[in-house]
Amino acid sequence: MTLRHSPPPAEPDAPPHGTSPVAVLEGGAATLRPRHHRELAARLALSAATTEGAHMRTEDVQPWLEERRAAGDFHVDRIAFDELDQWRFEETTGNVVHRSGRFFTVEGMDVVERDGPYGDGPSRRWQQPVIRQPEVGILGILAKEFDGVLHFLMQAKMEPGNPNVLQLSPTVQATRSNYTRAHRGTDVKLIDHFFQPDPDRVVVDVLQSEQGSWFYRKTNRNMCVETVEEVEVPEDYCWLTLGQIADLLHADETVNMNARTVLSCLPTEDPDGRALHSDTQLLSWFTGERSRHDIQVRRLPLASVEGWKQGAETIEHEEGRYFRVVAVAVRGSNRERVSWTQPLIEPVGLGVTAFLTREIAGVRHVLVRAVAEGGFLDTVEFAPTVQATPGNHAHLPAADQPLFLDHVLDAPDSRVLYRAVHSEEGGRFLNARSRYLVVDAGEHPAALDPPPGFLWATPAQLSTLTGHGHYVNVEARTLLACLHAMAAGTRGRK
Amino acid sequence: MTLRHSPPPAEPDAPPHGTSPVAVLEGGAATLRPRHHRELAARLALSAATTEGAHMRTEDVQPWLEERRAAGDFHVDRIAFDELDQWRFEETTGNVVHRSGRFFTVEGMDVVERDGPYGDGPSRRWQQPVIRQPEVGILGILAKEFDGVLHFLMQAKMEPGNPNVLQLSPTVQATRSNYTRAHRGTDVKLIDHFFQPDPDRVVVDVLQSEQGSWFYRKTNRNMCVETVEEVEVPEDYCWLTLGQIADLLHADETVNMNARTVLSCLPTEDPDGRALHSDTQLLSWFTGERSRHDIQVRRLPLASVEGWKQGAETIEHEEGRYFRVVAVAVRGSNRERVSWTQPLIEPVGLGVTAFLTREIAGVRHVLVRAVAEGGFLDTVEFAPTVQATPGNHAHLPAADQPLFLDHVLDAPDSRVLYRAVHSEEGGRFLNARSRYLVVDAGEHPAALDPPPGFLWATPAQLSTLTGHGHYVNVEARTLLACLHAMAAGTRGRK
Repeated sequence: MTLRHSPPPAEPDAPPHGTSPVAVLEGGAATLRPRHHRELAARLALSAATTEGAHMRTEDVQPWLEERRAAGDFHVDRIAFDELDQWRFEETTGNVVHRSGRFFTVEGMDVVERDGPYGDGPSRRWQQPVIRQPEVGILGILAKEFDGVLHFLMQAKMEPGNPNVLQLSPTVQATRSNYTRAHRGTDVKLIDHFFQPDPDRVVVDVLQSEQGSWFYRKTNRNMCVETVEEVEVPEDYCWLTLGQIADLLHADETVNMNARTVLSCLPTEDPDGRALHSDTQLLSWFTGERSRHDIQVRRLPLASVEGWKQGAETIEHEEGRYFRVVAVAVRGSNRERVSWTQPLIEPVGLGVTAFLTREIAGVRHVLVRAVAEGGFLDTVEFAPTVQATPGNHAHLPAADQPLFLDHVLDAPDSRVLYRAVHSEEGGRFLNARSRYLVVDAGEHPAALDPPPGFLWATPAQLSTLTGHGHYVNVEARTLLACLHAMAAGTRGRK
Repeated sequence: MTLRHSPPPAEPDAPPHGTSPVAVLEGGAATLRPRHHRELAARLALSAATTEGAHMRTEDVQPWLEERRAAGDFHVDRIAFDELDQWRFEETTGNVVHRSGRFFTVEGMDVVERDGPYGDGPSRRWQQPVIRQPEVGILGILAKEFDGVLHFLMQAKMEPGNPNVLQLSPTVQATRSNYTRAHRGTDVKLIDHFFQPDPDRVVVDVLQSEQGSWFYRKTNRNMCVETVEEVEVPEDYCWLTLGQIADLLHADETVNMNARTVLSCLPTEDPDGRALHSDTQLLSWFTGERSRHDIQVRRLPLASVEGWKQGAETIEHEEGRYFRVVAVAVRGSNRERVSWTQPLIEPVGLGVTAFLTREIAGVRHVLVRAVAEGGFLDTVEFAPTVQATPGNHAHLPAADQPLFLDHVLDAPDSRVLYRAVHSEEGGRFLNARSRYLVVDAGEHPAALDPPPGFLWATPAQLSTLTGHGHYVNVEARTLLACLHAMAAGTRGRK
């Protein structure tokens, strides 16, 4: 790396490197494209309505996952920090770092959130450990048409933090270190479809945030790219329709977080095109929420984080709440040749992540909330109605319980339209399980008059927003994928 | 302010404050709105096509501005730093701060930009002074229909940094300190239309970045709100159609930056709906540009910024390039009762800000560039083809000159489709003048095959992007307003 003093960047004095991945004019024979591909949304809807795939039957997916799990023979064991290989506590800061300087670090963060109408009201402040990984990773799903229907190439992938070790994952999950090695040979299969994608085959390609409570400003590139080429499918991969994946999204801990977030970004149809609030109103409300929140976040040395204590095997909150930093050793079968150690973040308790929902004049709406998380790049994002771990609030009086939590937990089965346990990214989080729910609001007063910070929006509106980054948080994106799955199931079974 | 330790913010335990500005259901009598108001774009287009206003004739605007200028009798004088009242150099940091802790500060920033295909290529690093003002301000234009045509309420506003002191400005320019005082009486006229706007009257409401070379992560809320109420118009204000404002945008230093950026955010029609690259491709290209840039920005004490030297009246770059930090005293007529001192940033030299343009299959396109600026919240934004001050590059060999700068400067009049000198925000920048140009690309090779980091996009595509924040930088937004003005002029004069 060469450092030199250069002019401020409004006036870059050298051309940027890399090449434009977008087709350019040749010989002036310019043709225009429609700005919006309406057929694409229709093709995706057809895939969602197709519950029988051209390759693997839906009922064979779980046995296949079992079989891949058995073949891998993966073992994940908790270890003490001093058993970590290649990872260490940095002397001056106490941060957890890899000897190569690559991968991620566990550091500290100090958050001051001024609330009130315009960030000038009451304030709360806390410190916590946080994962920092400033590079942009790729989460990519490859799509291809079989028998006239789009199928998506899913991978049976092991991640040490998954409660069941192996789940259905995107075609590609790659850190920048992975994909820049693509130039000189890489172990990330099929990365070439995503590294410099054919612009005419991009279905979606957008930067999205990840958990703002556990990550410091983490962003991944969520991509879906179609191919018309022959694809040699390795044995841990299979082609599934969106309808099949929708079925599998009703099962616990089967479709991993990375797959769910990419699925939530796929463009959808909205033939009705109506909602309680117009898109301009929705965005204006969101602008108001961003304006009125004032979040000041400062990175800290992990060693100086207040309210957390370090042991030989864990760094944990003094009252045992929120999460622990732990370490694991990973080992696979002889054939897999995997063996490494790494730190993980292990949340305390089973989370509850839920949308309240109701139909308004025949159109389904969900109750979104503008939530500030310390690790967000920009103040707030749209979040689920409820996003909480009940145990973290057990010490608080009833009045301080998370809004709507009781309503969601007490809902009779007849009002629960969707329910499954999903886990968060298994490469960073250990057993990070949450009950994902879509619950009919029924006669709850909020159905008519939501409290400040909450707003009714349609899934189609959220879907439009996932075409851009930093609007919809990762938990809401999982629920959006579940809402799509609910709709697909209905359609597929007609 | 009460500080207390609280749970990480994914699980907020208290309801947020403030009230939802969006209408809620009453008594279950829910009606849906169309998500997209197509009539609104048509009404804005009608206003753009209307070059005769219902109130003031266009040719009377400049004399009126002159008259207001004379009435104000404003004087702006350079002073030494030690003549600043209420402002001082903070002892430990050397930062320029206001005694109240309000307004803005001048601090330092250290920027490392790793370039290369994925942020792992050659690197450049620099330090510089920068203005920090973390609060979100409001830039609001009030709209109202007269004789069936939308008019916009513009203010003849003095700002000390304006080369000509007073320019046409939005109805409201308010910092958060201004508008939170709205509760207890404020001197910001007409703020109530924007503070908690009637959601059914919001035309646009979006957070946009400002100069990333001079501001550290500055964001303002760009708003246009329609009213159907009677408006009592103070004497420094007048109603103009978009067609009239378009005419005035062809004059030098008449429409201020804040007005230009709000105008650039107004929704437009795109009946053709075609472009060289689809919106998905445009966004994918942008995602790739954001992914491949790696910018690391660190705030510094102003006193420790390398490469800049402090005198009694200026803080300037050691080679005299880029800009100076200076101080001014402002004084108005007895009637105006204004009198204060403040620091300003004064750029060195006249800037050149230009779009190359061409028609592709009959549709106008402009050559956008993904540019990294140290003060951006998120790596890169879409910027003009050229954004440079020639003098800052005079010491560099021809090969290191900004791309396309010579092409823009050497263009014969026949290829210059738009030309005017505009100045940047006069509340922070002194005589920050730039030649804004739209130049026909002609037979330039880039017309067919733009270099890496550049892409052809339509003004309508940029207009869609200004509906969201952090896509289009403020210089490109000014040019977008100028492109709208070019189109409006054509239409209005048919």
